[in-house]
Amino acid sequence: MDNFSFHNPTRLHFGKGQIAAVTAEIPENARVLITYGGGSIKRNGTLEQVLAALKKHTVLQFGGIEPNPTYETLMKAVELARKEQIDFLLAVGGGSVIDGTKFIAAAIPFEGDPWQILSERAAVTRAIPAGNVLTLPATGSESNAAAVVTRRETSDKLSFISPEVYPQFAILDPETTYSLPVSQSANGVVDAFVHVMEQYLTVREGAQVQDRYAEGLLLTLIEEGPKVLSQPDNYDVRATIMWTANQALNGLIGRGVAQDWSTHMIGHELTALYGLDHAKTLAIILPSVMDVMRKQKADKILQYGQRIWGISSGSDQERIDAAIEKTRDFFEQMGIKTRLADYGIGADEVVKLIDQLKRHNMIALGEKQNITLELSESILRKAL
Amino acid sequence: MDNFSFHNPTRLHFGKGQIAAVTAEIPENARVLITYGGGSIKRNGTLEQVLAALKKHTVLQFGGIEPNPTYETLMKAVELARKEQIDFLLAVGGGSVIDGTKFIAAAIPFEGDPWQILSERAAVTRAIPAGNVLTLPATGSESNAAAVVTRRETSDKLSFISPEVYPQFAILDPETTYSLPVSQSANGVVDAFVHVMEQYLTVREGAQVQDRYAEGLLLTLIEEGPKVLSQPDNYDVRATIMWTANQALNGLIGRGVAQDWSTHMIGHELTALYGLDHAKTLAIILPSVMDVMRKQKADKILQYGQRIWGISSGSDQERIDAAIEKTRDFFEQMGIKTRLADYGIGADEVVKLIDQLKRHNMIALGEKQNITLELSESILRKAL
Repeated sequence: MDNFSFHNPTRLHFGKGQIAAVTAEIPENARVLITYGGGSIKRNGTLEQVLAALKKHTVLQFGGIEPNPTYETLMKAVELARKEQIDFLLAVGGGSVIDGTKFIAAAIPFEGDPWQILSERAAVTRAIPAGNVLTLPATGSESNAAAVVTRRETSDKLSFISPEVYPQFAILDPETTYSLPVSQSANGVVDAFVHVMEQYLTVREGAQVQDRYAEGLLLTLIEEGPKVLSQPDNYDVRATIMWTANQALNGLIGRGVAQDWSTHMIGHELTALYGLDHAKTLAIILPSVMDVMRKQKADKILQYGQRIWGISSGSDQERIDAAIEKTRDFFEQMGIKTRLADYGIGADEVVKLIDQLKRHNMIALGEKQNITLELSESILRKAL
Repeated sequence: MDNFSFHNPTRLHFGKGQIAAVTAEIPENARVLITYGGGSIKRNGTLEQVLAALKKHTVLQFGGIEPNPTYETLMKAVELARKEQIDFLLAVGGGSVIDGTKFIAAAIPFEGDPWQILSERAAVTRAIPAGNVLTLPATGSESNAAAVVTRRETSDKLSFISPEVYPQFAILDPETTYSLPVSQSANGVVDAFVHVMEQYLTVREGAQVQDRYAEGLLLTLIEEGPKVLSQPDNYDVRATIMWTANQALNGLIGRGVAQDWSTHMIGHELTALYGLDHAKTLAIILPSVMDVMRKQKADKILQYGQRIWGISSGSDQERIDAAIEKTRDFFEQMGIKTRLADYGIGADEVVKLIDQLKRHNMIALGEKQNITLELSESILRKAL
């Protein structure tokens, strides 16, 4: 196990009716900006509950944050927040709204062009305090320090991480997720699954607790994920998925171990160029990363195959093939296609994607920084 | 899953050489009292490393905190700290030193008789800030808000919980544990195992993540625990055990689920009356709790038997018997005897133990508060 430090400062309030906890979490004299997306929180009653909790606060609203939140939209919120002297942000939505709100929080007090936070990873030394009401379990953004933002005009999808943007609190009420469209529920399960895999499926290194935790989350997603599609109003299922997605990326399972975020990095380019849902890009790329990196990851893929899918017979290569196939099948079972061709993306696009990776300096990915552009190209070609 | 809130504020620094992190964790102008136990930290070099990290700080020392720390000893530290205007406590040791230091931290600013914190669970509204350097993985005290203290003169072993006594930081350097006596290493593994069981082995309630996490910790302790005895200098083994024991009682696996601390509560009386090591009391009582409460816990014991020990054949009662037997065998494998008779405690002592439980108002234990004194008596008799 590698040395590590760990501290997750976000206060979590999980369960039915927990939106009421917002009242005590935000200072009474704060000027609050509620940020949200396309308006589903108005239709499903979540916004109403939030406003009821904040009836003694000064509250403004900013809607219209897109899936894969854009710099262009977020800067409008920054402008509004500066003008209105907002001193607390409350994101109400899924990972896109929460990610976007982290950027807004960092950009408000930023001196200089806030785009540098993403393009140059300029240090974020201050941010406006923020909390969130999660309505789409998937990204774990509700209690981590990372955010991904897209600049539409240049097709850049870039991330930043700063302890300054850890949410102060996160409200996870599974009932807010009953009304999610099937595709978003499915995306959330696959997103969480891949988050776990990227912290788990690297090299074997004697980190048993992290392995067992990761495996526990994977098994839970496999058991409960399909139920989200067939029983969307089942509280226990929604609660389990919400807690699993949170644990998948709150920092815990990744402490002290190697990580491989190549699937995300390659996937980001698919979203930036073709607008594919984030989770769909992950479902396309992960099986291919497993295939191309099968030698380096052999021990861990075999462990994964055995413990998650009960694959215990055949040669190592056969077992690895079976583990990849099971992974792909699970994504397909969740209704998510796993081939570029399924989305109309052909072999002639691979060069463009590699150019994007090069432009974003994604030239040494993976747990050993040895996924070169050449290997990324192999990964994309295997995903056709 | 039940509603819950979760926030663990303790900053963890895990790994080789992390004692150096103490320097930045304690304000430079603080007056620090280092608290410790019997002096092993002097012999194994841990104190030296701590003092090196604090060479610019004002440091006093208070040694002699016993296993099962006593109120009598701790109050001497309170007196010293008040006189010397200590404003930061640094516990260097295992759970007893850290528990004791939590009490010291709460008692220093307490108005009135600090014994009330334990005897009446008087509210702790302030505490001196504290951190710790853990040298014995077992209790999880390094990053939780609970402490247990014994009053020698009255044979009371009582606990308190307050968010005010969460350690600000915890240093977990597995190398500090190389020199532990075999019996303490074994006690630590069993203590952590039982902590997990008390949050896991209750009723089945659709909390899959918590179940899988708990099972992951149990499997890890079963795989790695015996290696601590045979390979005391194996860093990976020591690191895994240290991280497992931390996770076993940092609050995470117990969120949103029923808990049953009857084993601890009954065990405390064995320590209070006969001075048995804490872990040994747990190894005696847990199998007996499983046996007596087998009906209420049937679903979970069967799940435990299947997932942890691979017990999948026989009638339910046979499988439950087998699961209890495996649990007992594991403790014995760790060198810890599991019968009261092994410690010279006979049937005639049961009445005394029940009197103690009654005096401490432990009359409704377990996840359903239905372990009456009569059932506790059955549990003790089954443990003879």
